[in-house]
Amino acid sequence: MRLRNKPWAKDLIEANPEKILVSPETIAGHWQSRFAKEQPIYIEVGSGKGQFITQMAQKYPDRNFIAVEIQESAIAVILQKQVELQLPNLQLLLGTGASLTTFFADNEVAGVYLNFSDPWPKTRHEKRRLTFKTFLAEYQQIMQADGYLRFKTDNQGLFEYSLCSLNAYGMLLDDVSLDLHKSDLAIENVQTEYEEKFSKRGDRIYRLEAHFKSDKA
Amino acid sequence: MRLRNKPWAKDLIEANPEKILVSPETIAGHWQSRFAKEQPIYIEVGSGKGQFITQMAQKYPDRNFIAVEIQESAIAVILQKQVELQLPNLQLLLGTGASLTTFFADNEVAGVYLNFSDPWPKTRHEKRRLTFKTFLAEYQQIMQADGYLRFKTDNQGLFEYSLCSLNAYGMLLDDVSLDLHKSDLAIENVQTEYEEKFSKRGDRIYRLEAHFKSDKA
Repeated sequence: MRLRNKPWAKDLIEANPEKILVSPETIAGHWQSRFAKEQPIYIEVGSGKGQFITQMAQKYPDRNFIAVEIQESAIAVILQKQVELQLPNLQLLLGTGASLTTFFADNEVAGVYLNFSDPWPKTRHEKRRLTFKTFLAEYQQIMQADGYLRFKTDNQGLFEYSLCSLNAYGMLLDDVSLDLHKSDLAIENVQTEYEEKFSKRGDRIYRLEAHFKSDKA
Repeated sequence: MRLRNKPWAKDLIEANPEKILVSPETIAGHWQSRFAKEQPIYIEVGSGKGQFITQMAQKYPDRNFIAVEIQESAIAVILQKQVELQLPNLQLLLGTGASLTTFFADNEVAGVYLNFSDPWPKTRHEKRRLTFKTFLAEYQQIMQADGYLRFKTDNQGLFEYSLCSLNAYGMLLDDVSLDLHKSDLAIENVQTEYEEKFSKRGDRIYRLEAHFKSDKA
């Protein structure tokens, strides 16, 4: 979702260069240097207001996390939280005007999370969906061979599309849940702001986990 | 579902050899000879009481249909209908004790329908699910290169499993619907007895359509 413009965002971002990078040109391959410990890196593409990624970083201190956002007003909200939390295993990336392969080196990432991505329901906007094949190619390039893609959404159309798109790309589905909050995975599921709101309303949450075939180029 | 034993079933089947075959050993490759016209053959594996297959045969007179059942008491109910309807493009097969590849030659079938198959929810019964890889291998063998598999169920667990199973086998998903009766496909959807009952109750019906990669052996 698009957030209202925040006039204070730019100053906050400029004041915290050790916590957030803005469309950096030379960070690819060097992300580990920005964390307290060298440990596997997981990224969330489209972190919104950051409830998921900050809770994940707290829950899994032995993993490093990067919140990737293209909206300044959204990443600024995450940065506010991180200024307070000071999590040593969380970094923020305001990445606009370039693809993920600019910001990450090949095999730099252990896993990619997509949560409640914009469904772009019109056919002519298919290329903007984060499960469109060009995005899958980006995830594949930056992800380690044993890495995974985890995707949650309440949008039925986007989930149906994504199943077919990942399958057509040659990805392997490790798990599909058509009602996450009633599944075995519910207990350890970390929710986004959006997810909390809509699942309380009774909406179903869909989830899949997949990986790339290791024999792919 | 298992139907009550029908004492009259055996006699009815014996009286109608031109409409039904019982575990035939020599029909593979010769199904067209049992129909009024030579036209593409579609089979339903597990036809239950036959509402779907008899309505399909009426709706698509330019296709031949075969109802495949392993329960005598079920296929006898379909045969009752067919004795009345006398559809020239419908044949019945009571096929027990052998695999589909015994009853059908390679490439003899244009499409396979699975409707509300037994979910066999216990892990130790996975091999009995009609979307388990050994069954997929049978469909692949008897199906033409451009053939399709269409699968409907109200069982969430079986549908989740089937998505992963077909994907792992290397099948290509052409369409996934997570709420068939509210989708664009609802209008032309032919319902089974079971589907009518459970969708009226508000249960979701899941559907997928897939095909085998033509470059597979």
